[in-house]
Amino acid sequence: MTRTLTFTKGHGTENDFLLVPDPDAELGLTPADVIALCDRQAGIGADGLLLVTRSAAHPDAADMADEAEWFMDYRNPDGTTAQMCGNGIRLFARYLLETGRARPGTVPIATRSGVRQVHIPGGDPDGHPTVAMGRPAFPGPDGIKVTANGRTWPALHVDVGNPHAVVQVDDLADPGDLRTPPTVEPAGAYPEGVTVDFVTTRGPAHLALRVHERGAGETRSCGTGAVAAVAAVLHREPGVPTGRYTVDVAGGSLAVDVAPDGDMHLSGPAVLVATGTGYPNRMGRREAPQS
Amino acid sequence: MTRTLTFTKGHGTENDFLLVPDPDAELGLTPADVIALCDRQAGIGADGLLLVTRSAAHPDAADMADEAEWFMDYRNPDGTTAQMCGNGIRLFARYLLETGRARPGTVPIATRSGVRQVHIPGGDPDGHPTVAMGRPAFPGPDGIKVTANGRTWPALHVDVGNPHAVVQVDDLADPGDLRTPPTVEPAGAYPEGVTVDFVTTRGPAHLALRVHERGAGETRSCGTGAVAAVAAVLHREPGVPTGRYTVDVAGGSLAVDVAPDGDMHLSGPAVLVATGTGYPNRMGRREAPQS
Repeated sequence: MTRTLTFTKGHGTENDFLLVPDPDAELGLTPADVIALCDRQAGIGADGLLLVTRSAAHPDAADMADEAEWFMDYRNPDGTTAQMCGNGIRLFARYLLETGRARPGTVPIATRSGVRQVHIPGGDPDGHPTVAMGRPAFPGPDGIKVTANGRTWPALHVDVGNPHAVVQVDDLADPGDLRTPPTVEPAGAYPEGVTVDFVTTRGPAHLALRVHERGAGETRSCGTGAVAAVAAVLHREPGVPTGRYTVDVAGGSLAVDVAPDGDMHLSGPAVLVATGTGYPNRMGRREAPQS
Repeated sequence: MTRTLTFTKGHGTENDFLLVPDPDAELGLTPADVIALCDRQAGIGADGLLLVTRSAAHPDAADMADEAEWFMDYRNPDGTTAQMCGNGIRLFARYLLETGRARPGTVPIATRSGVRQVHIPGGDPDGHPTVAMGRPAFPGPDGIKVTANGRTWPALHVDVGNPHAVVQVDDLADPGDLRTPPTVEPAGAYPEGVTVDFVTTRGPAHLALRVHERGAGETRSCGTGAVAAVAAVLHREPGVPTGRYTVDVAGGSLAVDVAPDGDMHLSGPAVLVATGTGYPNRMGRREAPQS
């Protein structure tokens, strides 16, 4: 008997995810299962996997159950967990709406970095969900450096629910081929790993971004990275205006709205493209042939 | 109203495909639809798409309808059509069996390069389908050269239902990063484009292969490429033994059995990993942001 699971695939600015309903937290997906499901050739393929679980049923979210019915149990494609994902949570909200688990309006969603409020516009299937990202923190230390393909830049530690190293570059081509992961020093600055954001300025309140995501490699978009990039601008130039920033990524454009008090909201497309049944026991790479 | 279609995703040695039932050839998928469906972030994602169509219903296959009930209408991920695909047709046979469209044994399947016989073992869901690939042809001309990342090698034109340029290399790393497509000269040798196979020898009757596929780029496996690689060995060294050859690819191993008369059969795994419903109107890349 082949084990099966239900999935939906979708993306936000081409940062793509598998959504797997697991309301009672009983599926028991192993890291190997997640790796296999996210494998683009030997599985279904995605930048990450989002288990859709009732907060009350999961030990990481039970203390949020009074505030948020649903918990986004986020898994990186290498099988590890992550706290937050700006594109993932917007897609998660779209999924709750389309499957009748939530209604248009503001929906609280539990994550490993706390409850986030996501607004889903009603009546418009193409409307852009918006997530309240809070006020980014700058935990330091000073003197962080990022090196990619032989070039080194200073970086700013920005925490937006997950840890980022934000680097200002003249041109998005400068970091080179990011299949070789950038290195970050000092090693102790990010004990749980880090997402690296390479940012350039395209105009007033207009940035562009390449991202090397912790646990996933280079992706076509990163929502928390877009927020971290805007936060770094405001931190570096305290007098710059608040309001709406546009952040271009390989897979489209995101909007980051900055309130006068520094509170940030992230908006952008979130699209569900397919739904079906997967056979995890058949997925995953076999032993590679010996060379 | 959102247009929907049914799909199954699977792979042979990590060369992956979407199978889309279209028995009456009425879906009318456009090249843009195929590109969107095969997009790994903004669609479902695959190395190619196989429409499962009754031969009698399709103008490219109606003359084969007496021999083969089903036509593999093969589409490259760039939206173009292709004649044949050694991994695709083995997966196509697995799909016919699992969906009750064929029974275990030998199943004739129509392709744009004629009817191929595929043997599907009964009773074993992991059994390896085998496709009769016929006798490769060597249409020439002499003097073909392939260049990749600044290095140039002589190449042999092998036709196994689709056109290949087979290059012998000392090490599979020699061609470098194949995201830059190799160039083939003279340009007129392959008016419809070509798949380039870089082959090295690992032992007696044991080869290893990297492939840059026409219309798809580098893939983790190529069934026709494995057959072309073995054919090139036999052409270069006419006295070598026939029998079973093992061809390692990034995604596993294929077997090529050579009969004394030069007739070839290709075997290997073929696995269906998921099935579901897709929404093509929601798929595909939007306009990239202006830089």
